Amino acid sequence: MRYYPDPARDIDLRRVNRAIEEAFAEHARGHVQMPPKLYVTLEKGDFRTMPAYIPSLGIAGVKIVNVHPGNPSLGLPTVMALTVILDVETGRPESILNATGLTDLRTGAAGAVAAKYLSPKRKVRLGLVGSGRQARAQVMAIGQELSITEVLVWSRNRANAEKFCEDPLLPECRSEDLKTVCDCDILVTTTPSREPLVMDRWISGGTHINAIGADAPGKQELDPAILRRATVFVDDPAQAIHSGEINVPIAKGLFDPGRIAGTLGEVVIGRKGRKSPDEITVFDSTGLAIQDLAIAAIAMGSAEAIDLPFL
Amino acid sequence: MRYYPDPARDIDLRRVNRAIEEAFAEHARGHVQMPPKLYVTLEKGDFRTMPAYIPSLGIAGVKIVNVHPGNPSLGLPTVMALTVILDVETGRPESILNATGLTDLRTGAAGAVAAKYLSPKRKVRLGLVGSGRQARAQVMAIGQELSITEVLVWSRNRANAEKFCEDPLLPECRSEDLKTVCDCDILVTTTPSREPLVMDRWISGGTHINAIGADAPGKQELDPAILRRATVFVDDPAQAIHSGEINVPIAKGLFDPGRIAGTLGEVVIGRKGRKSPDEITVFDSTGLAIQDLAIAAIAMGSAEAIDLPFL
Repeated sequence: MRYYPDPARDIDLRRVNRAIEEAFAEHARGHVQMPPKLYVTLEKGDFRTMPAYIPSLGIAGVKIVNVHPGNPSLGLPTVMALTVILDVETGRPESILNATGLTDLRTGAAGAVAAKYLSPKRKVRLGLVGSGRQARAQVMAIGQELSITEVLVWSRNRANAEKFCEDPLLPECRSEDLKTVCDCDILVTTTPSREPLVMDRWISGGTHINAIGADAPGKQELDPAILRRATVFVDDPAQAIHSGEINVPIAKGLFDPGRIAGTLGEVVIGRKGRKSPDEITVFDSTGLAIQDLAIAAIAMGSAEAIDLPFL
Repeated sequence: MRYYPDPARDIDLRRVNRAIEEAFAEHARGHVQMPPKLYVTLEKGDFRTMPAYIPSLGIAGVKIVNVHPGNPSLGLPTVMALTVILDVETGRPESILNATGLTDLRTGAAGAVAAKYLSPKRKVRLGLVGSGRQARAQVMAIGQELSITEVLVWSRNRANAEKFCEDPLLPECRSEDLKTVCDCDILVTTTPSREPLVMDRWISGGTHINAIGADAPGKQELDPAILRRATVFVDDPAQAIHSGEINVPIAKGLFDPGRIAGTLGEVVIGRKGRKSPDEITVFDSTGLAIQDLAIAAIAMGSAEAIDLPFL
């Protein structure tokens, strides 16, 4: 058995995007096993257990991930994760990966796959609502697929947006007000908001939106009028209805789940997609266990590991 | 983060029995969180993901365990397991335990708790149907609670039963035919059988039976007539109906789930129990995630660990 303490380091983002793309395609083909995430509630947060099996990649395992919003005040990340990989032939535990960084990257990769297939333009101005770790992961992953001409960033705390842009690995980047950020080709929302931040009137036809922040009941970032005007794709319908961007509008009767246009996997295999350059497309991401397995498969190929006795 | 490669070694079986007993009591009081086990099917077996949280023990985590019947031909155990423990305050992964041996022991401990409360005698003749690792774990755990005068063992392969009895740590032990083994005070069945092995006419009033082997749909070891005559306790009703000793009789209309007398936890807290020395009692064990957490809590207190970097 091997433990990978830092498998996100130096990982090839383009290979990650391809692996995530293939995992979504297998999901659309019905070739994966992925029971619904299990939630256990603790006093100050929760943890989620996410098992899956992707036969075409020969990989099976479980990600265990917490969400503790008070952790940053203790100097710890809000989200930390481990992934356990089993040998598919014998069920023997094969690898354990620190999946905290991988979780950021696999979510970024899903956004990149969505942008690749759903953006009508190849050269794009990227708008970011939120300036945390996931915002950066989205820029880096999308940059593998499309040419990013500039990045406009809004944060509730402007200083955070300005600090974000200091990263020398990013494309040209500047802090802007929220409305200006929304005037872009691809908008990425990554906040923990529980009320709409992005107003319908700010979004032009042809925009693609990655709605990443909402991952639990009660969270939302977009004016529901955007969802009604847009073509909405999800990673997994059951998870999106339960905890994605559409969860609050559905609960309030402002969005009909029957309006979900399809899954990202269906887009990847060409069964669904954008129909015109003028429509607004939304990718509602909640995060799937198969993404965690796909990125683990890449990481195990190159990252440094510690050997551990088992049996 | 710490990894415990061999946490079952030198563990205090009596302390394990007490921790398992307390976990069952908390289960009966409704003080634990334990979503239903998730099953993922692989080509040659399956794996199960078992998260839980026991607030009174301050422990939360997930066991991941496979069942691959063909493994022994490869020199590997049928069942292997890892348990991941999270810090309940922050959700941070705290410990990883090799849970293969612990799984044997926590199942044995549940049998010991059942025998302690449900056997009408304190000095007992123990009958074993099946002579594998779990049979031994049951004897060792029950021996902490009751005085075992002799052990009678049946195995489909008589040589295995004879070999079993060579273990110098066991009480007086001999191989017998199946019918003779059933003439005992406490009968423990631990086989992977898919048809009844133990016939109703062989079981005398007053016998307590630990039905351990059936842990998946289609498995059974007891003549359903025994279940109809007995007072049947389960570890968890939903799991027992799905995959315990009662699963096949229920599916065939030979046992009414309404006849379940209660849970082992309810027995421990005195809400349910044996009513007369002459009745037959059955404990139908499927294995609960809270047992895995309870034994992990004991093991982490004493076992040797390897420090691992995390973050």
